[in-house]
Amino acid sequence: MVPYGSHGSEPLVDELFNYIDTHQDEFVQDLKDWIAIPSDSSDPLLRGDLSKMVEITAESLQALGATVNLVDMGEEKLNDGRSIPFPKAILAELGKNSSKATVCIYGHVDVQPAKKEDGWKTDPYNMTEINGNLYGRGATDNKGPVLAWINAVKTYRTLDQEIPVNIKFIIEGVEETGSPGLEDLIKANASFFADVDYIVISDNLWLSRKPALTYGTRGSAYFFVEVEGGTKDLHSGTFGGIIHEAMRDLVYLLANLIDSSGHILIPGICDDVAPLTEEERRLYENIDFDLEEHKNNGGVNTFLYSTKEEILQHLWRYPSLTIHGIEGAFSGPGSKTVIPSKVIGKFSIRQVPDMKSAVVQQQVTKHLEDVFAKLKSPNKLTVSMQIGASPWVADVNDPQYEAARNAITKVFGVPPDMIRDGSTIPLARIFQDLTKKSVMMLPIGGADDGEHSQHEKISRSNYIQGTKLFAIFFLELSKVHEELMAKKQP
Amino acid sequence: MVPYGSHGSEPLVDELFNYIDTHQDEFVQDLKDWIAIPSDSSDPLLRGDLSKMVEITAESLQALGATVNLVDMGEEKLNDGRSIPFPKAILAELGKNSSKATVCIYGHVDVQPAKKEDGWKTDPYNMTEINGNLYGRGATDNKGPVLAWINAVKTYRTLDQEIPVNIKFIIEGVEETGSPGLEDLIKANASFFADVDYIVISDNLWLSRKPALTYGTRGSAYFFVEVEGGTKDLHSGTFGGIIHEAMRDLVYLLANLIDSSGHILIPGICDDVAPLTEEERRLYENIDFDLEEHKNNGGVNTFLYSTKEEILQHLWRYPSLTIHGIEGAFSGPGSKTVIPSKVIGKFSIRQVPDMKSAVVQQQVTKHLEDVFAKLKSPNKLTVSMQIGASPWVADVNDPQYEAARNAITKVFGVPPDMIRDGSTIPLARIFQDLTKKSVMMLPIGGADDGEHSQHEKISRSNYIQGTKLFAIFFLELSKVHEELMAKKQP
Repeated sequence: MVPYGSHGSEPLVDELFNYIDTHQDEFVQDLKDWIAIPSDSSDPLLRGDLSKMVEITAESLQALGATVNLVDMGEEKLNDGRSIPFPKAILAELGKNSSKATVCIYGHVDVQPAKKEDGWKTDPYNMTEINGNLYGRGATDNKGPVLAWINAVKTYRTLDQEIPVNIKFIIEGVEETGSPGLEDLIKANASFFADVDYIVISDNLWLSRKPALTYGTRGSAYFFVEVEGGTKDLHSGTFGGIIHEAMRDLVYLLANLIDSSGHILIPGICDDVAPLTEEERRLYENIDFDLEEHKNNGGVNTFLYSTKEEILQHLWRYPSLTIHGIEGAFSGPGSKTVIPSKVIGKFSIRQVPDMKSAVVQQQVTKHLEDVFAKLKSPNKLTVSMQIGASPWVADVNDPQYEAARNAITKVFGVPPDMIRDGSTIPLARIFQDLTKKSVMMLPIGGADDGEHSQHEKISRSNYIQGTKLFAIFFLELSKVHEELMAKKQP
Repeated sequence: MVPYGSHGSEPLVDELFNYIDTHQDEFVQDLKDWIAIPSDSSDPLLRGDLSKMVEITAESLQALGATVNLVDMGEEKLNDGRSIPFPKAILAELGKNSSKATVCIYGHVDVQPAKKEDGWKTDPYNMTEINGNLYGRGATDNKGPVLAWINAVKTYRTLDQEIPVNIKFIIEGVEETGSPGLEDLIKANASFFADVDYIVISDNLWLSRKPALTYGTRGSAYFFVEVEGGTKDLHSGTFGGIIHEAMRDLVYLLANLIDSSGHILIPGICDDVAPLTEEERRLYENIDFDLEEHKNNGGVNTFLYSTKEEILQHLWRYPSLTIHGIEGAFSGPGSKTVIPSKVIGKFSIRQVPDMKSAVVQQQVTKHLEDVFAKLKSPNKLTVSMQIGASPWVADVNDPQYEAARNAITKVFGVPPDMIRDGSTIPLARIFQDLTKKSVMMLPIGGADDGEHSQHEKISRSNYIQGTKLFAIFFLELSKVHEELMAKKQP
């Protein structure tokens, strides 16, 4: 990594970098202050802290000169029947110059639960710096990145420099509990998004020690396959040997979903998988990804594939099928001689472009019904798709990706790894589907930040470099957007 | 069923029957008194009642003139670390005439838990007669039968008739919690069993409305098949598609245990199954067994076989294999995207004569290892047999079976159905293995008595006829034993 702070050809960049470097302790203190607020959205007893966190964020944005709108998100119904208000969402705007690009930044200020007793070495709500790492709940997910955006804007403001883009913020307080109401919020505020050109989400991690840009996530088609043999569980002594047992049918069905080489046995399932283009293939070549480290992280000895490229492609751009378990069968310790009457196998397929949930559902259902028909079982088969979440993929040649690549190269001295995420992160897809805007995931968290875990952290370096990255991203985005507009002019 | 009480050719029989008929209300009252004691062996708080129940039983036996030995059974260690005494076991002897046969009667006076709130229509501990049925916990399992034996002896005593056999009793108070200590008790009292000729257990049910004699039970070989893929559960987003998932291997292994026609796929598994002899085949012909009723009881629509003979043979004298469930996989409601790291499939084989647990273990292990080898999986397979309980079968031509058949025919006017039980009832096998004596299961409970269920009952008729049966059994046993001894004389 090259030392930062020296970009002589661009005096503004130097000035921004210099300011950020010299004010880093102030930025770190701001993060410490934010982390001190236990804005755990899963705990109704902490709802007051969470609302306070949203208010503080709103004040920070107002201090930057933004127009801030706190949107009521309704009430959360608790298990005990009572209701408490959801934290408000923030819609903020800074700048309305029609000649500039408008970027909308998504973030959240709620956090996962954390208790010292969970095994934290430090108090999760008292941010502690050890060896250049800032430990605390929300450090990387997502208070650090949200503050890095605010720091970046503040730098322009304090230096009295013109911000080269219009900025909007959408900040929520219930991301860790599944963003209830986010889709409704987006739909109800179509005018807020109307003049947005680019949406940026900085709420994930790099793949390695190299910076990264995320352009895709896999979807998920989650299936229940139910076999019903009778109306009640039976004893294997009094019925074993004379009935068509439901578990027998179910394990046979599950065994016909995928073979031992990882090949999915559902006819046609890969027909819609986008072919690997030469351009895409090249993206994998330089990605920094340590197979052995990933094995160690997962506690596994062997992968199905041997090269980095194959592994990443099978995690990101090819579908996978996992059998998660069975509901209704005996699952406890010890020995029980039950013949379960109704068993539900659960498996999911990670969908990739250009697979469609409706098609997958049809293919899976037909396959299971065909396999079941061969069994000539009198039992009842029911196949249902519980979740049909689409994959998301962006055009890596989109202007904001180009801008981010340039900015990353300027800050870190290397171009980013272009990565995807094998998991299903609905946010990008939701924004893309509902606003039809360009969406980018621009992480600043390190691969080992441990979001959701004990010892969550962000490194001081990633936090401060991330602040620079965001500041420079505004500049770069304005440049590519200008070029784009110029091209569009007749 | 023919009317009882008229066997003019045998005045003693008539006298016994007449006494039992005319004293039936007294016998029913005794059962009501016994049921009133909540001798639930599973509840430590009821241990006092249980011990009282054992004492009352001992007193009843003493009143018959028996020598009663109350054997200390040690202490039960509770979950909270404390210990309470197990109820004592009863070893009693009545008669020591070396020219007579000696029969040892097994019974238990503890009961399953029962609460009115569980759905009982009557108070389970206040025996209630409705339409000729005596409802109450322990009515059929096993207080009714134990009292029927006592009633039978009492009848001889009160009529001042010589009891034609020597009688021993072994009565325990923890059968419903698995008879801990019973094997040790038998081993430690070898001299008690030394002069015993026949052991009779009356602790099961008829198959239908016809009386029955039980000459066999299936054993159980219970297996855990564990597949370990890694050291921790993983997320299907970050590892799905690149690893050999343990669940995939396991469902394949389980699917290769049995086919959809009920045929066990383990090579050699049926090699040791005793061939069906012509004599045994004939036993099935007249058995009263209603296939449709058994379907209804089980809540199933279809059986694997269509004839009564096939169904009973596959329940009793052919092995069956049931897949009970999986430990370690996702088993809850809802959707969870876990890749379980270590999963344990659980299945059991009901063993029949002449299968040997050690051979079955070898065959199952080899088969699973062979199937697993074909998968070329890097995961770790471990097959273990958790339970290896042998089947039990008696010689239906044994003298005590002949005596019981004669007695049943005299009391009920029809010969008994010769039945087995598809379940694994360790008692008969334990007695046979440890004492090497002839063992018989002689039920008096009706098929619909609901042992272990709400509304447990015994019919007044079965209880009173059962008392007659036991009284006549002593007579018949002395006859066949005499003939046997005569034959053995040079």
